[in-house]
Amino acid sequence: MDQKKLELDFLISALHKGTIHSTEDILLWLRKKNEETKSEIKEIPISELKQWAFSTNSEKICHKSEKFFSIEGIRVKTNWGLVHEWDQPIINQPEMGFLGIITKAIDGVLHFLMQAKIEPGNINIVQLSPTLQATRSNYTQVHKGKQPQYLEYFNGIKKVDICLDQLQSEQGARFLKKRNRNIIVKVGNDEDIPVYENFIWMTLRQIKELMRYDNTVNMDSRTVISAIPFGAYSTQNLRLLEAIGSLTRKESANNISLLYSVLSNDNAVNNTTEIIKWITARKFSCELEVSGITLNNMQHWFYDGNVIKHETGKYFSIIGVDVKIENREVVQWDQPMVRPAQEGILAFLIKKINGVFHFLVQVKVEPGNFDLLELAPTVQCMTGNYRIGFNEYSVPFINDVLSATGERIWFSSQQSEEGGRFFKEQNLNMIVEADTNFPERIPENFCWMTLNQLISFSSFNNYLNVGARSLLAAVSFY
Amino acid sequence: MDQKKLELDFLISALHKGTIHSTEDILLWLRKKNEETKSEIKEIPISELKQWAFSTNSEKICHKSEKFFSIEGIRVKTNWGLVHEWDQPIINQPEMGFLGIITKAIDGVLHFLMQAKIEPGNINIVQLSPTLQATRSNYTQVHKGKQPQYLEYFNGIKKVDICLDQLQSEQGARFLKKRNRNIIVKVGNDEDIPVYENFIWMTLRQIKELMRYDNTVNMDSRTVISAIPFGAYSTQNLRLLEAIGSLTRKESANNISLLYSVLSNDNAVNNTTEIIKWITARKFSCELEVSGITLNNMQHWFYDGNVIKHETGKYFSIIGVDVKIENREVVQWDQPMVRPAQEGILAFLIKKINGVFHFLVQVKVEPGNFDLLELAPTVQCMTGNYRIGFNEYSVPFINDVLSATGERIWFSSQQSEEGGRFFKEQNLNMIVEADTNFPERIPENFCWMTLNQLISFSSFNNYLNVGARSLLAAVSFY
Repeated sequence: MDQKKLELDFLISALHKGTIHSTEDILLWLRKKNEETKSEIKEIPISELKQWAFSTNSEKICHKSEKFFSIEGIRVKTNWGLVHEWDQPIINQPEMGFLGIITKAIDGVLHFLMQAKIEPGNINIVQLSPTLQATRSNYTQVHKGKQPQYLEYFNGIKKVDICLDQLQSEQGARFLKKRNRNIIVKVGNDEDIPVYENFIWMTLRQIKELMRYDNTVNMDSRTVISAIPFGAYSTQNLRLLEAIGSLTRKESANNISLLYSVLSNDNAVNNTTEIIKWITARKFSCELEVSGITLNNMQHWFYDGNVIKHETGKYFSIIGVDVKIENREVVQWDQPMVRPAQEGILAFLIKKINGVFHFLVQVKVEPGNFDLLELAPTVQCMTGNYRIGFNEYSVPFINDVLSATGERIWFSSQQSEEGGRFFKEQNLNMIVEADTNFPERIPENFCWMTLNQLISFSSFNNYLNVGARSLLAAVSFY
Repeated sequence: MDQKKLELDFLISALHKGTIHSTEDILLWLRKKNEETKSEIKEIPISELKQWAFSTNSEKICHKSEKFFSIEGIRVKTNWGLVHEWDQPIINQPEMGFLGIITKAIDGVLHFLMQAKIEPGNINIVQLSPTLQATRSNYTQVHKGKQPQYLEYFNGIKKVDICLDQLQSEQGARFLKKRNRNIIVKVGNDEDIPVYENFIWMTLRQIKELMRYDNTVNMDSRTVISAIPFGAYSTQNLRLLEAIGSLTRKESANNISLLYSVLSNDNAVNNTTEIIKWITARKFSCELEVSGITLNNMQHWFYDGNVIKHETGKYFSIIGVDVKIENREVVQWDQPMVRPAQEGILAFLIKKINGVFHFLVQVKVEPGNFDLLELAPTVQCMTGNYRIGFNEYSVPFINDVLSATGERIWFSSQQSEEGGRFFKEQNLNMIVEADTNFPERIPENFCWMTLNQLISFSSFNNYLNVGARSLLAAVSFY
């Protein structure tokens, strides 16, 4: 496959309003799907779950088949941050998930086949998801069973071009080293691919537009599209590109600037080597020891007969959920889920430096991380009340984010965490332009990176955390 | 720091014969150091080690201080390769080591400050090592104690430029997720840096020349210099570069070709995205479960009153070693070490494709790997007899390597593994040009990569294994 051509196709899709449905129509379609779905989702005591149970000595919570995932305890010791030792429950799901999107050029523009998908934890029940969400067992069909729709486009049966294929992390504060395989395939222009019920074609721009609505595009979609590369151009070539018609339909000066940040190879404050040096030094300075403990040995956490919670009521709790969803058929099951104690925030501060917008990235240590720390948004505060005046911890740059008004707020909406594990967990996602006085010099856990650099690092293993990727997906330059 | 300038400086150092000592003189100096060192290294039963002991229930072997490292047992289950389940002892050394080299421009050419260092497991006792080999505790001086020489150039006290700073893996078959910090710093031209006894300046070319001698440049030096970037140029710019005097002192057509492979940005069979897709698919297909077990629970391994060994006598054994080294002062200690059962081989097959030399890389699953698999040489066979006619396993491409003669053998010498843990372990390192009939199409666990791509992937975390890096260090293009 011609990589440069592909990247240009992705770029055009990120700029194009779509040729099949308007974004408004997609939104209406999604709301209709939502209304058609009757769901009854009840919190029940963990001990009343039928398909799940505490193991004999309350070491963990498992499915009776011992498949899917388990809730276990960990003890964390670290020299990082303000709290150096704690226990917590964590989700252990060793199998890699599979998140795949099919794309196809329609009327010359790449469209993405997205799915209206029901998840019990979703605030809107139905959110826009990738074409395929499958477990590794689903994918490899080891257990036979009902085959997921469109699987044949991902398992080698149908001929496709693989546009990208990456392993990406999930939330390191809640999952133990969980990773998903993020994949985008492209079918030929002549491939007569069926559009099943609950599926719909749209451009990348339309997915980004839908992200401006609260809890509409699910986490799995966000992580897959965050990985899309748009190519790298020298400043000189960028000026040439601008002349191309599809790139000149810009609506604001801000977006031209972001286009430069995503495409430009030049003018970055730090080159790749500098960024790797920074990450190495931060990893070297980090001590993190995570050991498995039984749930009933966790200090400061207890099962109150309903849920597992922290004695302060903070952070999150593990709850039981009984799910009944009536669409055309009735599906019923129960499972444990994670319910957050508060809403959180994920925010990038951005600033124009050397004529190119740079994103302020931090290294964030979380116990479930695959490799000590990952690149995270400027502000990531998903436990504790982050609002000004209620800060439980001192969160660097939180005031720079929350005090922004008007045109400095480039993006702001609520985004859900994965609705199969997290019960109505939403986090405020923001991209905020820093005040003109905001210093270029920053603390050692922070680094300025261009969008181009963020996408490039993301393509390697486990560099950007899921919060950073969620925000990266939200960046629009149309 | 100007990255392009730095990369050109590295390139010139890789081409330059040195301005201070001839390579022959360095070799003589090293041999003299060797002769001056009196060492008495005796194998003793593990149970007679004074500073080390089996823990109460023979779970593991630890130092009495519980510091340094321990020998533990693991049980491995995998769907990879021919053997799907086994137990083995492994070295657990959670602390990151620190491997640092100081460089300085002398007469306009970057020179590297190398050390003649004694290690008990070294075949030559004294080998060439980086300026600094330190544990994290040494480096951070948490235990105070005697400060390693030149530490002040690495811990922020002396002003230096950091040229590169990366985390790199050790042998995944012997170490449990061990990593070292590989760092190169550059002092200013005016910095009057002392050259202590046992230290010597040389160019990068000279280090590479010394690698052509058996067991002369230690593993730590090889991994650090393998990470050095030389820049990336379009073919057009390469032709310009050729005109530069320092680049035209080439001695063979082969080396011009390798120079293209290391510097060229163009003409690679697979681009970065293709390579990442390949790695992702291989990782996804890999199942690897490693669980800690006690030494006395290992199947097919036992302590015979002297050593821990496999009942077949194959693979490796854990031995006790009593060390007495007399240089100017007498140092004595004892410790467990790993002794291999056979010599192994590490070899890259290379082939000119699209006018640029490509290296045949494989993905290799090893239980101590940080992330399932790493990029390894075409042939990596460190357990079992690999010689033709004695193949214990079927090793792909082994015959293509061993049957090569004459000019097709570009590099061949014995290289030692780390002499602080491995007892007289040497592996044959080879770079062999494939026969002209060798196919471009290769099995799914293999991939063609240029030198430029190998160096570039290496700069990210845990991509190239130590065997691949050892061979990368050996590539010369002078």
